[in-house]
Amino acid sequence: MSLIEALKWRYATKKMNGNQVPQEQVDQIIAAAHLAPTSSGLQPFKVIVVSNPELKEKIKAVAFGQQQITDASHVLIFAAWDNYTEERVREVFTRTNSERGVPDAATEEYVSRLLGIYLNKTPEENFNHAAKQAYIAFGIALAEAALLKVDATPMEGFDPAQLDELLGLKDLGLRSTTIMPLGYRDEAGDWLVNLKKVRTPLNDFVIEFK
Amino acid sequence: MSLIEALKWRYATKKMNGNQVPQEQVDQIIAAAHLAPTSSGLQPFKVIVVSNPELKEKIKAVAFGQQQITDASHVLIFAAWDNYTEERVREVFTRTNSERGVPDAATEEYVSRLLGIYLNKTPEENFNHAAKQAYIAFGIALAEAALLKVDATPMEGFDPAQLDELLGLKDLGLRSTTIMPLGYRDEAGDWLVNLKKVRTPLNDFVIEFK
Repeated sequence: MSLIEALKWRYATKKMNGNQVPQEQVDQIIAAAHLAPTSSGLQPFKVIVVSNPELKEKIKAVAFGQQQITDASHVLIFAAWDNYTEERVREVFTRTNSERGVPDAATEEYVSRLLGIYLNKTPEENFNHAAKQAYIAFGIALAEAALLKVDATPMEGFDPAQLDELLGLKDLGLRSTTIMPLGYRDEAGDWLVNLKKVRTPLNDFVIEFK
Repeated sequence: MSLIEALKWRYATKKMNGNQVPQEQVDQIIAAAHLAPTSSGLQPFKVIVVSNPELKEKIKAVAFGQQQITDASHVLIFAAWDNYTEERVREVFTRTNSERGVPDAATEEYVSRLLGIYLNKTPEENFNHAAKQAYIAFGIALAEAALLKVDATPMEGFDPAQLDELLGLKDLGLRSTTIMPLGYRDEAGDWLVNLKKVRTPLNDFVIEFK
């Protein structure tokens, strides 16, 4: 199946049937997110994988009771850095340079410039930027899920502060951005499954300068 | 090629060879962005496609002279709504309902709730939210490009205000978020092409609650 076909097949599944997504496929979806590009390669986010039933119930409670969270076998939470700090940025470059066999001096000018930008922004601005990087990975993970014919629901409808509290994210310097339950559509029970996928007309979506 | 293999193959191409990406493949990359999911299905962004050489030169000038912009055959700019307005939100629901054969009354409660949220936020908050939706599509378009073996460079390094001015985006109620030049790597001339792809160790990237 091509990615275009997979994207046509997927939809924001509202009702899942409770079947288990094989761990190998969950791993592939995470691998896609892990390979996603991010600004300066910082990967300023983590993916939290919840399969624990009690915890899924608690997540559902801070997500307006949306049922796909407990019907999914795995719930991924994309959580971004709450700020860019010198320590976090340097750690990434030190590791990358080390793996590439490049001296830190080779990237120092770039790193200094980057820190000059980030350290002059508010934590909220930096979190927002980090969150955007998580959204790139979120998109790519959704693409991988669709290719595997695993249903996924892109979700922003939850209370981030309560979810952060529940998962202890503050202590990890993280803030939740999006939720992605993984499972399989319940064709008979999902009101959305048979509704036409509608998009902005292509000629209104694209602006060309030839 | 699987998406995982494609993601390993791709990298943020710094030097392209000037070869032309076939229009059909550009269209497929745009189609992937067009099919990307967005919050409430609003698709609060557009994709601007620039193949005009003079305009690419001008874009390069507001993007710190980065060469891949003029070496690419096509440059995509993802530009998000500068705000959520009642008119924009209602237009989407009216069209979607019409295509689905659903009366507007069926979504009125949902739309009212949505407007209650958006119209109480600042334009900057709403733009940031819209931009995040564009980043999902940006990720999915990058995935499609990689599957087609088209090189793409995810870019945030440009002056958004100057780019908006150049493309006349303000009058369209849009603000640029990211740039994606499309082309083919110049293996001999790109310093990045042979450097190892480095990612956060997987056990540090993933947090599991089993």
